Amino acid sequence: MATEKVFAKGSAAPGPVMKDSIRIYSMRFCPFAQRTRLVLNAKGIKHETININLKDKPEWFLAKNPLGLVPTLETSAGEVIYESPITCDYLDEVYPEKKLLPSSPYEKAQQKMMLEHFSKVVPYLYTIPLGRRKGEDVSRLEAELKEKLAKFDQDLVDKKTKFFGGNSITMIDYMMYPFMERMAVAEIQYCLDHTPALKKWMQHMSEDPTVKETTFDVDTYKNFYKSYHEGKPDYDYGL
Amino acid sequence: MATEKVFAKGSAAPGPVMKDSIRIYSMRFCPFAQRTRLVLNAKGIKHETININLKDKPEWFLAKNPLGLVPTLETSAGEVIYESPITCDYLDEVYPEKKLLPSSPYEKAQQKMMLEHFSKVVPYLYTIPLGRRKGEDVSRLEAELKEKLAKFDQDLVDKKTKFFGGNSITMIDYMMYPFMERMAVAEIQYCLDHTPALKKWMQHMSEDPTVKETTFDVDTYKNFYKSYHEGKPDYDYGL
Repeated sequence: MATEKVFAKGSAAPGPVMKDSIRIYSMRFCPFAQRTRLVLNAKGIKHETININLKDKPEWFLAKNPLGLVPTLETSAGEVIYESPITCDYLDEVYPEKKLLPSSPYEKAQQKMMLEHFSKVVPYLYTIPLGRRKGEDVSRLEAELKEKLAKFDQDLVDKKTKFFGGNSITMIDYMMYPFMERMAVAEIQYCLDHTPALKKWMQHMSEDPTVKETTFDVDTYKNFYKSYHEGKPDYDYGL
Repeated sequence: MATEKVFAKGSAAPGPVMKDSIRIYSMRFCPFAQRTRLVLNAKGIKHETININLKDKPEWFLAKNPLGLVPTLETSAGEVIYESPITCDYLDEVYPEKKLLPSSPYEKAQQKMMLEHFSKVVPYLYTIPLGRRKGEDVSRLEAELKEKLAKFDQDLVDKKTKFFGGNSITMIDYMMYPFMERMAVAEIQYCLDHTPALKKWMQHMSEDPTVKETTFDVDTYKNFYKSYHEGKPDYDYGL
């Protein structure tokens, strides 16, 4: 689909957002943007996607969001929302169909605390492969990551549920999955060898139709990240 | 008030939280805990305060919250909630009196985005005094801080309101104030010299009865932080 190709510096700005739609500024391989794409798809929200060349950002995009980050949402009223958890909470509040956050304030707080813990897992997806590329010993980093993952595993064991918010997928699962699926891309999936409940969660998640709609196979990710590390990110890879 | 004195390692655990109350584990001079104390007071929520010796934490506190951080809330049902913005959102949702977060999802998202921007201001309160103590040149850090503060100033100018969410105090003001009032303690208040709207906001905030209930004078803060930097934090200073 030609329309998925990225908009770069010098490109013409897209027109206004249509009345009954919402726009996401995204990048096809970005795990943060994938969170928002998961929520848009899971809730069946009518939306259009504008992919951004993050290395060479359009001037009109920086005018909308000076941070130039994806995901960014834009409404037909010209409202601009960014930071992945903020965009996801916004969508869940505005579109009442299929609520992803629990209605109980305590359960909501529990998901927010879990997301805070998970934010300490994310850096390892970058630091371990980076250390390896530099030929460094990454065993301490691996041990730290395994320790953090073991807590999420234990949580599933304690809860005896398929997902982190019960037996169906809720917001926290979609917040975590884009990073968890990149463990195979970063070639650190063996860090899950001692966390069977978490491994099973990954399996359940990968079977979710919404997940299938937003994901790529490991080779596609690897090829994109290869181009990225070579300083020439191929944002349109596979199109 | 003797009851305000900190609980340290080896102390007896306090009893269960009373049915019609909520408990905050706090430290009198902690800006993160002050956020939650502001929300508890602003909303008139019946609560009890347990101050924690953060250098020598009680075992029973670590059993409740393995991160050992303040603020931590505990309900009469034994639910434990931590991370300051999460505790504040929880309180605002559970106690409907005097809502501090806007009801509009977009305005709520705006406050969350502003809080995200503000989180990049917070580190300067530590890095500038630290650099000075080491005898380093902190002019670059000061310039960065001033640039960030100028954006908040401009926001007030654009909005033409007394506070960040309108002409009365809302959540974002209480999230920012504990750190902003510590600029004088860190002796970097001159960084506000070119941000008159932000300076006026500080003045308005300092006159708020809820702020007055949770704050100390600059000398008290300075004496506490002095003891802190000497490695012997006097958590009960002034009691």
